[in-house]
Amino acid sequence: MDIPALRWLDPPEGPAIALLDQTRLPAAEAVLVCGDVATLVDAIRRLVVRGAPVLGVAGAFGVALAAHRGEDVAAAASAIGQARPTAVNLSWGARRVLAAYQRAQADNIKNTGHTERLSTRAALDEARLIERADAEASAAMAAHGLALLPERARVLTHCNTGALVSAGEGTAFAVVRAAHRAGRLARLWVGETRPLLQGARLTAYEARRAGIPYAVLPDGAAASLMAAGEVDVVLVGADRIAADGSVANKVGTYGLAVLARHHGVPFVVVAPVSTIDSGTRDGASIVIEHRGAAEVTSFAGVPVTPAASPAYNPAFDVTPPGLVSAIVTERGVARPADAGSLRLPDARQGRDGPVKAFPVER
Amino acid sequence: MDIPALRWLDPPEGPAIALLDQTRLPAAEAVLVCGDVATLVDAIRRLVVRGAPVLGVAGAFGVALAAHRGEDVAAAASAIGQARPTAVNLSWGARRVLAAYQRAQADNIKNTGHTERLSTRAALDEARLIERADAEASAAMAAHGLALLPERARVLTHCNTGALVSAGEGTAFAVVRAAHRAGRLARLWVGETRPLLQGARLTAYEARRAGIPYAVLPDGAAASLMAAGEVDVVLVGADRIAADGSVANKVGTYGLAVLARHHGVPFVVVAPVSTIDSGTRDGASIVIEHRGAAEVTSFAGVPVTPAASPAYNPAFDVTPPGLVSAIVTERGVARPADAGSLRLPDARQGRDGPVKAFPVER
Repeated sequence: MDIPALRWLDPPEGPAIALLDQTRLPAAEAVLVCGDVATLVDAIRRLVVRGAPVLGVAGAFGVALAAHRGEDVAAAASAIGQARPTAVNLSWGARRVLAAYQRAQADNIKNTGHTERLSTRAALDEARLIERADAEASAAMAAHGLALLPERARVLTHCNTGALVSAGEGTAFAVVRAAHRAGRLARLWVGETRPLLQGARLTAYEARRAGIPYAVLPDGAAASLMAAGEVDVVLVGADRIAADGSVANKVGTYGLAVLARHHGVPFVVVAPVSTIDSGTRDGASIVIEHRGAAEVTSFAGVPVTPAASPAYNPAFDVTPPGLVSAIVTERGVARPADAGSLRLPDARQGRDGPVKAFPVER
Repeated sequence: MDIPALRWLDPPEGPAIALLDQTRLPAAEAVLVCGDVATLVDAIRRLVVRGAPVLGVAGAFGVALAAHRGEDVAAAASAIGQARPTAVNLSWGARRVLAAYQRAQADNIKNTGHTERLSTRAALDEARLIERADAEASAAMAAHGLALLPERARVLTHCNTGALVSAGEGTAFAVVRAAHRAGRLARLWVGETRPLLQGARLTAYEARRAGIPYAVLPDGAAASLMAAGEVDVVLVGADRIAADGSVANKVGTYGLAVLARHHGVPFVVVAPVSTIDSGTRDGASIVIEHRGAAEVTSFAGVPVTPAASPAYNPAFDVTPPGLVSAIVTERGVARPADAGSLRLPDARQGRDGPVKAFPVER
C-alpha cells in the first residue's frame, strides 16, 4: 500500500493539504500539513512534493484551499503557478481549479445569487476530479507503456516517477510496476539522479516497497551499462513537453537520451497529456529552473567541495524530439514525438473540451 | 605550493611512505604514514592515494620500502601490483623497481659478492627516477596539451588528474594549469564524479589552490552544458590505454566521450606513456574494478537509499578509440588514437629500452 504523496484533509478546524515529505525519504516517512497557501508554496519550492503530475494535483488542491480559507483565489493560483517554473502541470492544475471556481461564481451570481460556499465546493470538486483523472491516466499510461516493453525487460530509469509524483502509480514507474506484475520485468536500473538523489532515495524506496528487483547506479555509470548491453529500454517522465515534442525533464535525462541513441536503446517518455504544453513552441522556449549551489556542494549538511565553490545546477534539461523514441500518454503512444503527433488542441482546457484524435501506435 | 601526494621519508627509525590522505580532502589535509607494504596496500585499496601516475610512483616506492625493510621484495611487488586491477601504472612501477633490485642483486653477486645494501639502494634510486620522470612527463604533457587548446578555452574535466595523482602537476589538470598560466583558460567545468566525488572534492580543491576559475556540476548536467555550447574541449586522464587505443578511466568518462562526439566537442585524453599497456590488446580485455555498493548507497557517510539496496558500481569504464580525438603523452600527441599511433614497443621496459618514433602532431 502506497503512502499517498498528497491528501486533502478536512478536519473540523478547517481543511489542509497533507504532503509526504519527500526531502526526508527514505530515512523518515514524515507528513507535512499545509494549512495555508504560503506553506504549500514553500513546500513546493523546497521539493517536499515534486514531480510533474502530483504538482498538478497540488496546484489544484492549493487553489481549493485558498477558496476554503477565503484567501484571494486568483492570487493564490498565481503564486502556486510560479512556485517552480519548469513543470507545466503546476500552473495547469491551479488554473483549472481557478477557472472552475470563477465559473461557479459567475453561475451563482447569474442564477441564484452568489454564495461563496458553492464556488468553494466547485473548486474542491474540480481538484478531486483532477486527482481522480491523474490516477486513471496513470493506469492508462501503464497499459500503453507495457505494450512497448520486451519480455524480461531491463529498464533504466531516472529521477522518480512513481506513486510519489502521482495520485496513481505514476508515469514511467507505473509502466515498470505493470511490467513487474505481468512478470515481464527482469530488472530496474535506477539512476541515482544527482544532485538531490531522487532515484536513489525515492525510486529505490518505491521499488523496494513494490518488491521490484532493482539496483542503483551513479548517473555516470549509465553509459557503460548500455555499452554492456544491459539496458533494453530507457523510461523517463517529463516536466513539460513543448509543442514540437521537446521534453524537459530532470537534469541528466538528455544525456541518457544521447547515450540511448548511441547504443540503439529505445528512449521512451511517459507523461500525461497535461504535461504537453502547446503554448511552448519548442525546447529553447522552455524555462529551465536553476537551483542553488549548495545542492551540489554539500550533502546532508556535509560540505563536499572547498567552501563557497561555484556550481552549475540546472534542475532540468531538454531532450529534442529527434532523440525520443515515443511519448506514452494516457491517450496512447505518440511516435515519433513531434508537433504532428502531439496535436492536442483542447487537452489543456479541461474535461469539457473536444478531444482531437491522437495518433496511437501500440 | 602543492602538498605532495606522496613523499619518501627517511628518518633514523627507518624509511616510510607519507601519503596525503585523499579520502579526507578537502575537509582535512591529513597525512598517512605507511611504515610497511601491508599498510601501503591497504591505503591504495582505500583510495588514500589514487590516480594512475602517482600509483606508479607509489608502487615503485612500495617495492623500495620492502627492500629497505628486508621484506620479500618479489612478493611485495606482486601484492602492490594486485592492490587494484585497472590502473596499469601500479604494477608497472612495482615491476620496474623489482627489476632494478634484481638486476643489482645479480650484478653484485657476479662482481663483488652480494650486499643487500647495494640492491636496496638501487631499488630506491629506481623509484626516485620514476618519480622524477613522472614530474617531467607531467610538464611535457602540459606543453603538448596546451597547444591543442583554443584561446579562452572552456574545459570540462572529470575525476581528478592534478598534483594529487602525480609527482608533477598531473595529466589533464596539468594542461589546465598551463592554460591558466598562459591566460588561455576561461573556465574549468568540474564534473563532480560520483560516487566518490573526486571532481568535487579533489579537483575543486586543486583548482581553488591554483586560483583557477571553476564551477562544479553534477555528472548528469554535462550534457546540457555541452548542448548550451559552454564546453570547448573535454580533458580527462586515463588509468590504462590498451594497444588499440581504448581508454579505461574513471566511470563516467565514456559517457562524456559519447556526449562530446554528439556535440562536436573534442575529447582529449592526457596520460603518460606508462599508461599505455601494449600487453592489453583492446578495451574488452581491460579488467574493470567493481567496488562495494556502499559507495553508491551512502553519501558523505549518510545512507541515501533504502537499507541494503543493491548497486552497480564499476570504478572505471572504457572509451573506444573512435571517440577519442587525441591522446596527449609526454612524447607528443597521438591522433587518431589507435594501434598505429600508439606503437611504443619499449616504452614499458624502462629507460634503457630503445624508443621508437612516436607519431607527433602538434
